[in-house]
Amino acid sequence: MQELLNEIAEAMATKTERGKVADYIPELAHVDPNRFAISLATVNGERYSAGCAAAPFSIQSISKVFTLTIALGKMGDALWANVGREPSGDPFNSIVQLEHEGGKPRNPFINAGAIAVVDAIMMGHEPKETLAELLNFVRYIADDESICFDHTVAASEMAHRDRNASLAHFMKAFGRLRHDVDKVLGTYFHQCAIAMSCEQLAHAGLFLASDGVNQPSNIRVVSPQRARRINSLMMMCGHYDASGEFAFRVGLPGKSGVGGGILAIAPGQGAIAVWSPGLDEYGNSLLGTEALEMFVQRTGWSVFGH
Amino acid sequence: MQELLNEIAEAMATKTERGKVADYIPELAHVDPNRFAISLATVNGERYSAGCAAAPFSIQSISKVFTLTIALGKMGDALWANVGREPSGDPFNSIVQLEHEGGKPRNPFINAGAIAVVDAIMMGHEPKETLAELLNFVRYIADDESICFDHTVAASEMAHRDRNASLAHFMKAFGRLRHDVDKVLGTYFHQCAIAMSCEQLAHAGLFLASDGVNQPSNIRVVSPQRARRINSLMMMCGHYDASGEFAFRVGLPGKSGVGGGILAIAPGQGAIAVWSPGLDEYGNSLLGTEALEMFVQRTGWSVFGH
Amino acid sequence: MQELLNEIAEAMATKTERGKVADYIPELAHVDPNRFAISLATVNGERYSAGCAAAPFSIQSISKVFTLTIALGKMGDALWANVGREPSGDPFNSIVQLEHEGGKPRNPFINAGAIAVVDAIMMGHEPKETLAELLNFVRYIADDESICFDHTVAASEMAHRDRNASLAHFMKAFGRLRHDVDKVLGTYFHQCAIAMSCEQLAHAGLFLASDGVNQPSNIRVVSPQRARRINSLMMMCGHYDASGEFAFRVGLPGKSGVGGGILAIAPGQGAIAVWSPGLDEYGNSLLGTEALEMFVQRTGWSVFGH
Amino acid sequence: MQELLNEIAEAMATKTERGKVADYIPELAHVDPNRFAISLATVNGERYSAGCAAAPFSIQSISKVFTLTIALGKMGDALWANVGREPSGDPFNSIVQLEHEGGKPRNPFINAGAIAVVDAIMMGHEPKETLAELLNFVRYIADDESICFDHTVAASEMAHRDRNASLAHFMKAFGRLRHDVDKVLGTYFHQCAIAMSCEQLAHAGLFLASDGVNQPSNIRVVSPQRARRINSLMMMCGHYDASGEFAFRVGLPGKSGVGGGILAIAPGQGAIAVWSPGLDEYGNSLLGTEALEMFVQRTGWSVFGH
Repeated sequence: MQELLNEIAEAMATKTERGKVADYIPELAHVDPNRFAISLATVNGERYSAGCAAAPFSIQSISKVFTLTIALGKMGDALWANVGREPSGDPFNSIVQLEHEGGKPRNPFINAGAIAVVDAIMMGHEPKETLAELLNFVRYIADDESICFDHTVAASEMAHRDRNASLAHFMKAFGRLRHDVDKVLGTYFHQCAIAMSCEQLAHAGLFLASDGVNQPSNIRVVSPQRARRINSLMMMCGHYDASGEFAFRVGLPGKSGVGGGILAIAPGQGAIAVWSPGLDEYGNSLLGTEALEMFVQRTGWSVFGH
Repeated sequence: MQELLNEIAEAMATKTERGKVADYIPELAHVDPNRFAISLATVNGERYSAGCAAAPFSIQSISKVFTLTIALGKMGDALWANVGREPSGDPFNSIVQLEHEGGKPRNPFINAGAIAVVDAIMMGHEPKETLAELLNFVRYIADDESICFDHTVAASEMAHRDRNASLAHFMKAFGRLRHDVDKVLGTYFHQCAIAMSCEQLAHAGLFLASDGVNQPSNIRVVSPQRARRINSLMMMCGHYDASGEFAFRVGLPGKSGVGGGILAIAPGQGAIAVWSPGLDEYGNSLLGTEALEMFVQRTGWSVFGH
Repeated sequence: MQELLNEIAEAMATKTERGKVADYIPELAHVDPNRFAISLATVNGERYSAGCAAAPFSIQSISKVFTLTIALGKMGDALWANVGREPSGDPFNSIVQLEHEGGKPRNPFINAGAIAVVDAIMMGHEPKETLAELLNFVRYIADDESICFDHTVAASEMAHRDRNASLAHFMKAFGRLRHDVDKVLGTYFHQCAIAMSCEQLAHAGLFLASDGVNQPSNIRVVSPQRARRINSLMMMCGHYDASGEFAFRVGLPGKSGVGGGILAIAPGQGAIAVWSPGLDEYGNSLLGTEALEMFVQRTGWSVFGH
Repeated sequence: MQELLNEIAEAMATKTERGKVADYIPELAHVDPNRFAISLATVNGERYSAGCAAAPFSIQSISKVFTLTIALGKMGDALWANVGREPSGDPFNSIVQLEHEGGKPRNPFINAGAIAVVDAIMMGHEPKETLAELLNFVRYIADDESICFDHTVAASEMAHRDRNASLAHFMKAFGRLRHDVDKVLGTYFHQCAIAMSCEQLAHAGLFLASDGVNQPSNIRVVSPQRARRINSLMMMCGHYDASGEFAFRVGLPGKSGVGGGILAIAPGQGAIAVWSPGLDEYGNSLLGTEALEMFVQRTGWSVFGH
């Protein structure tokens, strides 16, 4: 397996078409497009990595998997009153669907849905408290106390918040948010600004591959049913309007982030984290997807057959 | 396993909320809403059934899986020039997306996409020839020469073709169809009017559960990669704008038909066909979905974890 | 006044940017883009023309004004059950609005609306009878028995009918059309293929400028209220999604055709017909609009003030 | 003429179906739905009124006519770089069109467009300065120094700003606004909270009926061309997605406000202001429209013919 990861890292190093690094905030624009990392955490406790797998990067939308997990833990199926669970067919930041459907976002992974999830977990608390809780959770499932927010990234996102502010105010106008919009956005941008390495991310996602149980600690994070459901949402909606493409090519539940990371789950096998900052036209990591495609072809871990 | 299917059939028999039988053509409207069947064909050659599993019903959109398979066999990835592979986020008969995206349907399972697939496999031939080829293929993978078109259903669909004719003419206006619209529609409605029992359907779908190899005959129908890809499309788009819901609840690739059937694939395990004529608001079998949900909970065959 | 028309014709002759002649059917594509004509018929019986004002051209969508007039005469306000009277905000051949609004076209001047109007006036008769009635009406209001259909244009439109066939089948699926789609389309394409000169067109439109009374014959065609209402529809919807631009620049009710003609109404003053085959990006005559703008600036006949 | 206004007021007093008073802020919800007023200011200096024509009400969106006039005065056609001039086909507060068209609002009278106009006239100044300028302008054209903002209404609108805040942030994300969103909205809500009586409003609008010259003072406010153009925009877009209906029934350029007022312009004749707080389903004054319809039928002042 280590050999496979090495091969993948080497194959990716030779690629000249590496996509376009996100440039809507300076902090993301300055990342070196040549970096690459891949990590695998298996359900029986093994760890493999290749590339700069200890280097932290901005996980951005991958964090939506963690806030969704927290929200379901806090309120269970009541969450679905204000967030749907269908692919949207629209880009990550689209507002059209909200207008047509009463301000209810289609799923928890498009921006509007993730903002609604943040609002749901705030439960009247201040951003600081909510963020502390979130960070504790991520550190717990990654078993790593060193994980932190990148406050510079969060501040820069806040300064460029207009598109997301539009989504939040729109939902608030329909009564879908209970908290102050700027507080919700401040929390949301910090959530997205968590910095993690591929090693940490693979570890953090492992409970989704092992029926909800954190490994090797053997502590239950969610029920098996909930793990399956989160995986289904990652499969259906994890890559926005390119989710079908990811399912077609990779065949694993996955969630991408604009920082270039992808967390993919192979149920019963392990969690795989990849990082390559260059994005395709849909905002998903170009080489990250290629690496996962290669990984699944070699391991036969697609959920759709060997 | 037989016991489980019996339990499911009994549980479904007690349901009073059975959905609404499709009534846009008389032939479908007259089906008894109390009928129910479930069949399982496993990769190691076992067969289990409960309910009226030998009774033929109109497979309708489930046939789209078979025409997609034929189309990929004939032209491979060239098919994707005129058909996408993303969830549409819209109802099965929506035309909005076509206007916004140059007449290219989002995926092969919405009506527009399936019509484009039919046009692709006609390859200049007459409907009669194309239909003969299709029927041969279905009989072959089901290993049953008795399977037939229900010409009355096909004729009735043709008489009520306006919505689908609108889709077809729209695509033709963008050069997405090569053949005469009425010939394409005539072929399409016959395809949808194939009558099959759950036993036949489970058998016919088995190659998708066993890496492309028909069982127990051990004859390869498609490559393992193609089987995975078809499964991924069934998962992402098989239930129209309720595909997310099916993935969330059932967790298997599946394709529904307005006749009340669903074909679900458990990769590495088997193919399951269910039939209950009453539909939910999205046009998918209400009890069929419930039956599959119960089946997966008991077998742990969800692709997203046990 | 004759001097003004001469000036306008001369000014237009010097223009090098003349737009793009419609090319979706060969019969329209072959028209000389350098032709230009303008005719004015005043409410007190005067006639002025410049350019090739006796040359017939394909009036295309301008005919929608005449079929609307006939439909209102036949069924009055009952027409509005199946056709709206609001600007659509979409291109002339858009189908999106139909899906969102139960198959009811926004107004009688977009293609879908005009097709619904044709269906309304057929009243169970054959296309031949409806077309005879239409031609009689146009000849009557133009006071010219020489006006004819260009059957070659109509046949070519029928051969390229897919986009309009899509609209018609869509409306039929919602019960908005009562007649056979191909018969409705055949009638519609003949209606659009009426060939008229600017002289004839200005004469034919004069009743709308003089409170519904044909001049100089002094025969009432419609009531004053109906004339006002048709004018309001021409103002609001006569140029598709560039109707606002036409109102802003010209300030008169007007209806354009893809053949390059425009019929404009100056209530209480007269009817103006212009023709220049080159179209702008919205499908409206580029120089026709400029000529009308110049005409209104010089005459002060804008309905919005001198 | 006075007799006609009296008749209209009496006719309206007998109506039992009076529409629904706007209730999204308490200040508007508490207005007595039985109030009615109509005022006419003619181009030759006459003034007629009936009902409570001296009672101030919240002019709301009618103010958009005045800010548009100021914006055109300040920057001329440069305004149109960020605001279109077409009917939108969508409700007043729709955001769908913005997403499809690069954040550029279709016209200056939908909310998004009016917010963009406010941003345009701020020109780097503080809300206080912009509002002072606006109030001065309105007082000047109404020739009445007593006109004021209703700060309670403005504050309440600000507290319920989410839908408009969504529009503003969306446009800002596309670079369509230059100023701080909350400052723009604060200015916008004060603009909408101007309180005027029908007498004042008719006087203020008179310059649009008399080729841009204020009457009886004979001072030019805008050029004749600009008056025509503003009138055309009122005709095409002044009643949102019911603009076609208003043109069809009334036949005058008009601008409605959610406070129940309508300002209508009869070019060459006069300006008419009506007020009745109950709204129809599109947010336009139900009886205000009926009163104008009656007025135009009796005076023959429709721009579309007598």
